[in-house]
Amino acid sequence: MLGRIAIVRNVQRTALKRSTGCSVLRQFSVQAALFKQPVPPKGRSKTVDDINKCVLNAKYAVRGRIPLLAEALKTQLAENPESLPFSKIINANIGNPQQLDQKPLSFYRQVISLIQNPDILNQLSPAELSKLYKPDVIERAQRLLKDAGGSVGAYSQSQGVAGYRETVADFIANRDGEPANANDIFLTSGASGSVAHILQLFCSSPENGCLIPIPQYPLYTATLALNNASALPYFLDEESGWSTDPQQIEDVVKDAIKRGVTPTTIVVINPGNPTGAILSAENIEAIFEVAARYGLVVIADEVYQENGFDDVEFISMKKVLRVLQKTQPGAYDNVQLVSLHSISKGVSGECGQRGGYMELVGFSEEVKQVILKLASISLCPVVTGQALVDLMVSPPKEGEPSYEQDQKERNAIHEALKERASLLHRAFQSLEGVSCQKPLGAMYLFPKIDLSKKAIAKAGSLGMTPDEYYCKELLEATGICTVPGSGFHQVPGTFHVRTTFLAPGTEWIESWKEFHEKFWDAHRD
Amino acid sequence: MLGRIAIVRNVQRTALKRSTGCSVLRQFSVQAALFKQPVPPKGRSKTVDDINKCVLNAKYAVRGRIPLLAEALKTQLAENPESLPFSKIINANIGNPQQLDQKPLSFYRQVISLIQNPDILNQLSPAELSKLYKPDVIERAQRLLKDAGGSVGAYSQSQGVAGYRETVADFIANRDGEPANANDIFLTSGASGSVAHILQLFCSSPENGCLIPIPQYPLYTATLALNNASALPYFLDEESGWSTDPQQIEDVVKDAIKRGVTPTTIVVINPGNPTGAILSAENIEAIFEVAARYGLVVIADEVYQENGFDDVEFISMKKVLRVLQKTQPGAYDNVQLVSLHSISKGVSGECGQRGGYMELVGFSEEVKQVILKLASISLCPVVTGQALVDLMVSPPKEGEPSYEQDQKERNAIHEALKERASLLHRAFQSLEGVSCQKPLGAMYLFPKIDLSKKAIAKAGSLGMTPDEYYCKELLEATGICTVPGSGFHQVPGTFHVRTTFLAPGTEWIESWKEFHEKFWDAHRD
Repeated sequence: MLGRIAIVRNVQRTALKRSTGCSVLRQFSVQAALFKQPVPPKGRSKTVDDINKCVLNAKYAVRGRIPLLAEALKTQLAENPESLPFSKIINANIGNPQQLDQKPLSFYRQVISLIQNPDILNQLSPAELSKLYKPDVIERAQRLLKDAGGSVGAYSQSQGVAGYRETVADFIANRDGEPANANDIFLTSGASGSVAHILQLFCSSPENGCLIPIPQYPLYTATLALNNASALPYFLDEESGWSTDPQQIEDVVKDAIKRGVTPTTIVVINPGNPTGAILSAENIEAIFEVAARYGLVVIADEVYQENGFDDVEFISMKKVLRVLQKTQPGAYDNVQLVSLHSISKGVSGECGQRGGYMELVGFSEEVKQVILKLASISLCPVVTGQALVDLMVSPPKEGEPSYEQDQKERNAIHEALKERASLLHRAFQSLEGVSCQKPLGAMYLFPKIDLSKKAIAKAGSLGMTPDEYYCKELLEATGICTVPGSGFHQVPGTFHVRTTFLAPGTEWIESWKEFHEKFWDAHRD
Repeated sequence: MLGRIAIVRNVQRTALKRSTGCSVLRQFSVQAALFKQPVPPKGRSKTVDDINKCVLNAKYAVRGRIPLLAEALKTQLAENPESLPFSKIINANIGNPQQLDQKPLSFYRQVISLIQNPDILNQLSPAELSKLYKPDVIERAQRLLKDAGGSVGAYSQSQGVAGYRETVADFIANRDGEPANANDIFLTSGASGSVAHILQLFCSSPENGCLIPIPQYPLYTATLALNNASALPYFLDEESGWSTDPQQIEDVVKDAIKRGVTPTTIVVINPGNPTGAILSAENIEAIFEVAARYGLVVIADEVYQENGFDDVEFISMKKVLRVLQKTQPGAYDNVQLVSLHSISKGVSGECGQRGGYMELVGFSEEVKQVILKLASISLCPVVTGQALVDLMVSPPKEGEPSYEQDQKERNAIHEALKERASLLHRAFQSLEGVSCQKPLGAMYLFPKIDLSKKAIAKAGSLGMTPDEYYCKELLEATGICTVPGSGFHQVPGTFHVRTTFLAPGTEWIESWKEFHEKFWDAHRD
């Protein structure tokens, strides 16, 4: 048998050298396999037991149990449209505006279509072109393409296209009235990537801790779990509009230190997710006071900064920091801040395009080089996502040809969001056992539901948290998919639900109200 | 002073409640800051010393020291074009075709421009549209958009758009003549993301090891360093065309086990990077034999599968596995395989668009659910990148309107790549002290440079590895940016350089030859 193996292998090698075609190789390969000795005792396949425990522990409720159930019901409806008490799933679990009916901004998509396919400029006459693209669209596309080196298909610098970073720096400087430098800016594939980098640097073992607001967007707890680092919750105060209590933050820091955990970072989500709250300058100053005292890197998740309603102005954390540094020279110079923004939210809603930036304030060149190295391992963020960041922070200006249409679209989206937020808020306020803070921004409401003992017991019997049970019942009765408050963490003994207010129309809100009344009656103690 | 703080804070709160405009809030905020008590002793800013050691240890030479030097020289040239002995930098350090002169495939970019901006279909007459888009372009764009739920701006399923995964499954089935299932396929933002996920699961501590080929694409060593896991090198044999020695692989496994490290995974890069080698079916079977015996998850990095020249056919690892499983029932059923593909290479060259897939073979539903959870934390891969995967694996077919043009473009790119590879290979073979294996695929050459003692000593005096020194001298004399072999690892005592053969023209090759002759003379022992 050995002889036959040898012959076949020799033939195979010769065949390779003589550039044999595919089918002959395959034939020899099969024959060689047949002649091989049987394989000795086998190793074991990998199962869930072999998986890194940190990965098993990480949870991300936004695409967790309830949304997965919703996907299954969606499939069921596709196969049998009459089989459920509703005709479609309403994904109110995730801030995904363009999955519902929000249209993308025309200016963005026109520019992006041109940078993807610049040949269009040569294939149509000027008159034909003008049906598709106003002059400022063409101009912007040409500039973006030039900055990218000629093609969005080439890897860019790992830090992001230099020209786009300049645009971001200008935006920040205009927004805050404080200088910003393109070298401090990293373009990313959205906020999630930025968070992963920073926590990987400073929060990567149980001895390091990151303060996170409760309730929080579960990217933070998930990333900390993956890193096997310590999550240090500080509770936002629901009754005062989800405000931040600096004393509490300091207590959390001191307690962690006592337990042998060094807090290295603090996350601040402003405008809040899931709370919809906007922090006052006072709140922000107090946070910096603690950060300065304990050397905490501040991660300012500001992705909803364009989603404020008119009531309260958003103030960036960087702005507040600069004011503090000027008015109290020396006192806040040690503070390090990472500010995050994203194209997924605001009125852009370009979630699927994956783009964002982080601005690094107060970090040495050496540390920035390490962050650059980390970014380089994944090569670069998607270039069209980077281009969309440029577009987001630098929309058409007054007097430019696309300005009016762009403003019209933006205002329509703003108004729609504001109206839906208001409608949904009023609906919740009208329900028995439900109270809801007025949303000042973001895309969510986070109503508190005072579930009865009966409901709590029923949930327990099903192996669910009480709010998970409420969400499951809501989903199965109405098709509305939400996320239980337990996914965001909350004061123990309280129950919440996070819903977006993005879905169009009012019918779904009416269904929710009907469901809630029936649920309430069925679970009265 | 306390009184004044109180007054200002009250005014601030009232201002907030009365929906004050921005400038008033900022004014109050500044005043409040002025009245605060001074901040107690400060915490320390984070420096490099505070950074996770694993991040500090990770290296990624493709964008390492030499490429960073090249960037600095590029900036210098932009400011002062006469200041260096060359007029431009040639980035031969990275497989980035569209940064050089490779054009994207027209069909792809036409489709993508339409899915970004479908309004185009309503804004032009049929005659005008036909100047831009043939009917199959429009049809494909409409199908891709429908599969994505109507907009590329919405988050997709975390596993990737279902319809695109079906297309990938069809492609795999046709390529191998073996069934493939869309449920086993995950769309990703390129191979880097897939590798990060799999290693995060199975190779995340020093007790776990991953076998990697030497030389290797440094994504693997970088990711293992970040994970604090053990890299277990197995050496490819340069003299026999960089072939794989199964006995050596088994020795590496046994040695690791003796040292208390459990090998869990083995990476196979085929076609090879940086080697350009294509594995025979025999080589692949031998790898599976060891994988089966020791329960190793096989990561098949097959991103260059469309970059074979005509000499040797690429055979997928999955195909070989299925043949083994059929011809030796029971013997290979425990083998788990992750096959990677990407839109960055082949003739697509869409590096900056970030798209790829991984096919999971032999994993339980449970394990796949964990991988899905991990994917969900970053929400979803960029949707247009996902669409480009669909386009890559399912190009225009014969008889379709775009077929001829598409074939013409593909063949031109193939021919250009083949010709450049051949030209560069011949150039290296003509140089004193240089030998180079014939490239069978991928985009790189990895010539061996037998540096003299004098050159080695000079490198040492500059604190560089010898091949790094060669690359630096080459860069400073000619503008050609390459990556030293030490970045990919190599047999100790040998020196290599990795260069792409993507740069157009022959001048740069002539410059390299001239440089080498001078360098050789200057460093004769």
